[in-house]
Amino acid sequence: MTRLYNDPRAFADEMLAGFADAHSRYVTRVPGGVVRAAETPAGKVAVVVGGGSGHYPAFCGVVGAGFADGAVVGHVFTSPSTQDAVSVGRAAASDAGLLFITGNYAGDVMNFTLARDRLAAEGVDARVLFVTDDIASAPADEAGKRRGIAGDFVVFKVAGAAAEEGYSLDEVERVARHANDRTRTLGVAFGGCTLPGDPAPLFSVPAGRMGVGLGIHGEPGISEDELPSARDLARRLVDGVLAEVPADGGRRLGVILNGLGTTKHEELFIVWRSVAELLAERGFTVVEPEVGELVTSLDMAGCSLTVVPLDDELERLWRAPADTPAYRKGAVAAAPAGVRRCAEQASGARQEAERTGSAASRACAATAVRALGAMSERLREAEAELGRIDAVAGDGDHGRGMVNGVSAALEGATMAAGQGAGAGSVLAAAGDAWAAKAGGTSGVLWGAILRAIGDELGDQCDEVPAARVVAAVRAGVAELRRLGKVEVGDKTMLDALAPFAEELEAGVASGRTLADAWAGAAGAAGRAAEATAALRPRVGRARPLAEKSVGTPDAGALSMAMCLDVVARELAAE
Amino acid sequence: MTRLYNDPRAFADEMLAGFADAHSRYVTRVPGGVVRAAETPAGKVAVVVGGGSGHYPAFCGVVGAGFADGAVVGHVFTSPSTQDAVSVGRAAASDAGLLFITGNYAGDVMNFTLARDRLAAEGVDARVLFVTDDIASAPADEAGKRRGIAGDFVVFKVAGAAAEEGYSLDEVERVARHANDRTRTLGVAFGGCTLPGDPAPLFSVPAGRMGVGLGIHGEPGISEDELPSARDLARRLVDGVLAEVPADGGRRLGVILNGLGTTKHEELFIVWRSVAELLAERGFTVVEPEVGELVTSLDMAGCSLTVVPLDDELERLWRAPADTPAYRKGAVAAAPAGVRRCAEQASGARQEAERTGSAASRACAATAVRALGAMSERLREAEAELGRIDAVAGDGDHGRGMVNGVSAALEGATMAAGQGAGAGSVLAAAGDAWAAKAGGTSGVLWGAILRAIGDELGDQCDEVPAARVVAAVRAGVAELRRLGKVEVGDKTMLDALAPFAEELEAGVASGRTLADAWAGAAGAAGRAAEATAALRPRVGRARPLAEKSVGTPDAGALSMAMCLDVVARELAAE
Repeated sequence: MTRLYNDPRAFADEMLAGFADAHSRYVTRVPGGVVRAAETPAGKVAVVVGGGSGHYPAFCGVVGAGFADGAVVGHVFTSPSTQDAVSVGRAAASDAGLLFITGNYAGDVMNFTLARDRLAAEGVDARVLFVTDDIASAPADEAGKRRGIAGDFVVFKVAGAAAEEGYSLDEVERVARHANDRTRTLGVAFGGCTLPGDPAPLFSVPAGRMGVGLGIHGEPGISEDELPSARDLARRLVDGVLAEVPADGGRRLGVILNGLGTTKHEELFIVWRSVAELLAERGFTVVEPEVGELVTSLDMAGCSLTVVPLDDELERLWRAPADTPAYRKGAVAAAPAGVRRCAEQASGARQEAERTGSAASRACAATAVRALGAMSERLREAEAELGRIDAVAGDGDHGRGMVNGVSAALEGATMAAGQGAGAGSVLAAAGDAWAAKAGGTSGVLWGAILRAIGDELGDQCDEVPAARVVAAVRAGVAELRRLGKVEVGDKTMLDALAPFAEELEAGVASGRTLADAWAGAAGAAGRAAEATAALRPRVGRARPLAEKSVGTPDAGALSMAMCLDVVARELAAE
Repeated sequence: MTRLYNDPRAFADEMLAGFADAHSRYVTRVPGGVVRAAETPAGKVAVVVGGGSGHYPAFCGVVGAGFADGAVVGHVFTSPSTQDAVSVGRAAASDAGLLFITGNYAGDVMNFTLARDRLAAEGVDARVLFVTDDIASAPADEAGKRRGIAGDFVVFKVAGAAAEEGYSLDEVERVARHANDRTRTLGVAFGGCTLPGDPAPLFSVPAGRMGVGLGIHGEPGISEDELPSARDLARRLVDGVLAEVPADGGRRLGVILNGLGTTKHEELFIVWRSVAELLAERGFTVVEPEVGELVTSLDMAGCSLTVVPLDDELERLWRAPADTPAYRKGAVAAAPAGVRRCAEQASGARQEAERTGSAASRACAATAVRALGAMSERLREAEAELGRIDAVAGDGDHGRGMVNGVSAALEGATMAAGQGAGAGSVLAAAGDAWAAKAGGTSGVLWGAILRAIGDELGDQCDEVPAARVVAAVRAGVAELRRLGKVEVGDKTMLDALAPFAEELEAGVASGRTLADAWAGAAGAAGRAAEATAALRPRVGRARPLAEKSVGTPDAGALSMAMCLDVVARELAAE
């Protein structure tokens, strides 16, 4: 179990502080993560990796020459926020653009996509790539839904080496996608990990059994079998990954046998012996294999086998030297062209330009702050209830997350408004704070909705007509659909927000005041949220819980309806 | 727990095979372990490290440029045999001599000392150094009794870098001893490890508790406390090691925060943060710290802090580049001067010269083979009984170990005798086989006794008078005292063998036949063995069990007496 910490909530922060101290030759901290100690030289593409903590050496351990330029570091098993990714991306990028790479998990996808958009808006050519190597996480015809596990390492390595060689951003992205398209991993688990501060493991595997395809955060696998001998396990892993390897990939393989934390090197070498024999029997040549801990999961017991068929280009990049805290290979040219960052540079990152809003926009911003205040009050009252409802089919943290998010948003909005910002900036500040503090997917989505609404309202309008508010709400709905990849009927907050937007638009179109139309629409949202009790969710990880959740309304839709309702009262009071 | 293997008994062998395959760029297997893939160049001192398996990257993981030239690899938590060390030493040494370095454990001390002597007899200038960094394993005024733990890494690194720089053997030994004299480690444990194939941990620590100073094989520590916060643990470790650091060492420290297996990097970095702060507060400058898994203990939970005050020479060697399977640092000059070994060279090692014995010596050898046969039969009968007696104060494996040893010895002796060898070579073959297969301290000692007797008898004598047998037995007793560092009354096999030798000598001196004198002496040995029940053992690790063992005869003394007894009958029958 995980035993050593001071405050479990500060686990990732304190880990990162210790890491950066021990490896100050390699890295410098910036808000949201670390970047190389030396500046990215002009003309060099920056490769920035990232994800939740608890997977060392992923992700901060591979920042260094020949590998990543920066790592965005979230809380344990939690996506870093959009702001974190933007901050590390800004610090890492020179003039040649930036490629974000992370595993294909909902929170990471949303946050890194948003960060790419945000950097693009600042003029940084940013791209994003999600690793999808875990063959157990979705069938081959839905390969885009697969999660990223130890194959992360392959894609990071190839992209990092390509960037070091001077590839353009287009070329780094191309070869990284090519590596991801060819990389396949199958993992097994023998025991779960413990989150810092928790008395019991996050999940468990019965003694003498093995979860095949069990995810590194305990996501459901594909089967549970008896614990095999090392030889039989090797056969299972080799058969599994070879069945999915592209047929045209050739006979030379990059291979990783990865330990998840408590399955130790000695055991891995015993399994490796059989893996090597089996691959040789089948006519493959193994190129510079890695047998060790490359993408872990705290103290989880288990291992995974990753293969990537190498063409000449991939082989060169796979074999290229690297010098990072946790992974070193060959001889890297001494000091890279970049100069050492001074602390100020590193910690600063560019400040967002200050914006003073127009009078009309500042008035709109003041309404937004009051609305957030009312939402905060309502969500605090409802925290326990939302938690109970969420616990039926989820992990019961929805109430807590919403309260954390709205509290932070209110604080951020109040501060921005106090500095004279318009509605756009105030809602952007609110959204960023919500996403950073709420944790989880709904926090990211709430943050993105508020930001999208703010972008539509802007800071400089002369007036804020009802139609503009309708358009802003529509923008929020569109952002929720895009990022959350949800549809109406999926039993999510969209089930409340979408009918709200419909009714609001219809009401305003029929000549009602904004306050009046909002009140009507909020009523519709409330009814729609209650109606989600009858729905069976369609998407992703919630599937195994579908039956459980029938009969209970969706906590996210309910909390959305509550918020829309109290905002209606706030507008009516104006 | 340790879950992945095929046959638990083959764990170390299969591990080593997989390791050597995965790291064939670095290492080549030889009987008993691995050596660098490139030959040791003429003029370069060879540094050979070693010990039991289960501590990866110790010991095979640090074979490579700038570090060790070879590693002797024993079974899990078991010293490699003398033969293993001789074999690896032979393969690693060029013309500039050899330094063996291992932790200060009884089995390792005996085997590596014997290996040094054996290589010296072959003309190789060999030295041996035992690391004693564990401050919890003995008080400061008995520093020579301390065990070696993570400080192994410091001494290996310094010696390896010195040898790479071209130091002479005297100088490599000097600086390695200097490093050992300055290196201090304090470790803590939160949970025990599981040996391959065992259903339960080798030892355990109660939940929420911490064993301070608990050894990496579960050796007793100095106290058990409540599990502290990371910050408090850092303070405890820093206070502990600084209290023992030589006062004149200066303010620059090489530091290792080492994880034992399931205490993961994230936790270590959190502890490191506080360690770094505390060392800085006390005016120390930390030089290139290592935070990670360097000397592990399978899946044991725990960590240790090692410090070594650096003078200019030690700092240079500590910072020097290295390129090994598990540890790489800086840029190592591409290919070293040595050429790549061919498989034949590597696997061969020099064959011992064949010796054909004189007729008298061959007759004596035949008696020895019959005597071993009789011992084998007797020990098989007594296996369970010896196990039960040993279990009172030990781990209950004495019967098993004796049977394994004598069986192998009988096989080795029979084969050598079949090839016409004299008594000296037959007993040497028997001793080597016994030591290699019995495992544990008593196996090594039995092996050494047989070899010492054989050396005294030789292969070319014209006759084997009783006086020569007496001298040979005396040589065996002397070897047992020297290697085992035991005295009569320590409740060991010496308590039977010493009175036997006395009585045998007296009997022969009084004119009795060898068979007659032997029978009388064997009777004395049997009585002495029974009398060990009244003794309280004096030495080393047995101490905490002293009370338990009072009232029970020593299993080692009993099995010695049994063997002497059946040999008496064999001599009488001739």
